[in-house]
Amino acid sequence: MTSSGLESLIEALRCLPGVGPKSAQRMAYHLMQRDRKGAQCLGQSLLHALEAVRHCQRCNTFTEADICERCASSRRDRTLLCVVETPVDMNMMEQTLAYKGLYYVLMGKISPLDGVGPHELGLERLVSRVLDGEVREVVLATNFTNEGEATAHYLTVLLGQKGVRVTRIARGVPVGGELEYVDSGTLAQAMRERRGAAD
Amino acid sequence: MTSSGLESLIEALRCLPGVGPKSAQRMAYHLMQRDRKGAQCLGQSLLHALEAVRHCQRCNTFTEADICERCASSRRDRTLLCVVETPVDMNMMEQTLAYKGLYYVLMGKISPLDGVGPHELGLERLVSRVLDGEVREVVLATNFTNEGEATAHYLTVLLGQKGVRVTRIARGVPVGGELEYVDSGTLAQAMRERRGAAD
Repeated sequence: MTSSGLESLIEALRCLPGVGPKSAQRMAYHLMQRDRKGAQCLGQSLLHALEAVRHCQRCNTFTEADICERCASSRRDRTLLCVVETPVDMNMMEQTLAYKGLYYVLMGKISPLDGVGPHELGLERLVSRVLDGEVREVVLATNFTNEGEATAHYLTVLLGQKGVRVTRIARGVPVGGELEYVDSGTLAQAMRERRGAAD
Repeated sequence: MTSSGLESLIEALRCLPGVGPKSAQRMAYHLMQRDRKGAQCLGQSLLHALEAVRHCQRCNTFTEADICERCASSRRDRTLLCVVETPVDMNMMEQTLAYKGLYYVLMGKISPLDGVGPHELGLERLVSRVLDGEVREVVLATNFTNEGEATAHYLTVLLGQKGVRVTRIARGVPVGGELEYVDSGTLAQAMRERRGAAD
């Protein structure tokens, strides 16, 4: 292979998550052979996004303005702040139409094995956001993975010290779920966290 | 989501083979959040490769010159021409150190379901390459898939008409393979194509 431009492209494609040497090669060949227009568009989109995309100063999600549309909206309940790991999680929550408060996007989770602690996650910013006077309740909606749970636990202690009400979204049997097919950990939690049937 | 730069990036990432909406989103978030340097490098590599990378006029592989190094080399046997589907296959063949001839890279295979016929594959170029006076034997090293076999069959007929010797790399039990674990199609071929044990 003498084509160093191609080699650099293969190497550069490996910055994509989940792309190893073989897929990077396949992608590069595909782009050069079958989809030069797509490659052009991707190259330009990348460079444009790097220029344009930054973080909302209030909720930390991606935006092209200082404050994202959602944080700037006057229609949302400003006393509720839902903490999620990623913008995707925020979108999932929005799609439920069950929440009308604001968000804070961690852009990650506490994960000591990956060298991500409270400081790396920038939790100071979350604390100052929570203490800005309007927030009454922080709803923790991190994932129910080990790391998501650890993050929720850490935030519960951290924000509890500041005198804010901290809640966690409910765990349990999924809607439409049959006990026969629910894993026993979930079922055990659902039993432990049972609530009055008339609530 | 107000960030249209991000949305365009997610859309653009879908030009990569095997990348659907979910992975495209994950990739875009990863790049914007964790690897802006990688994104920069990828964007530039793409645009550079589009400028620099083209096809070798003789063997059709990717190169940045008119004729690739391998075709320009004086150390190779110019009477042998090995036909492969992709540059990866050519590299695999090179790594065996068992072949010292030249190559022709189809950059695909005949695949009627994908709308790729002999014409789309540019087989006229292969024919004129074969007939340029030096080639004595064309070794077909397309894959042993249905499409690779169809391509080999088509080339056998096409080039046979031109009076060139056309051969196919051997099928059979892999080196180190145990009959117990070889699929029966391969074993049946190995039996049909058995050869004198003293060869």
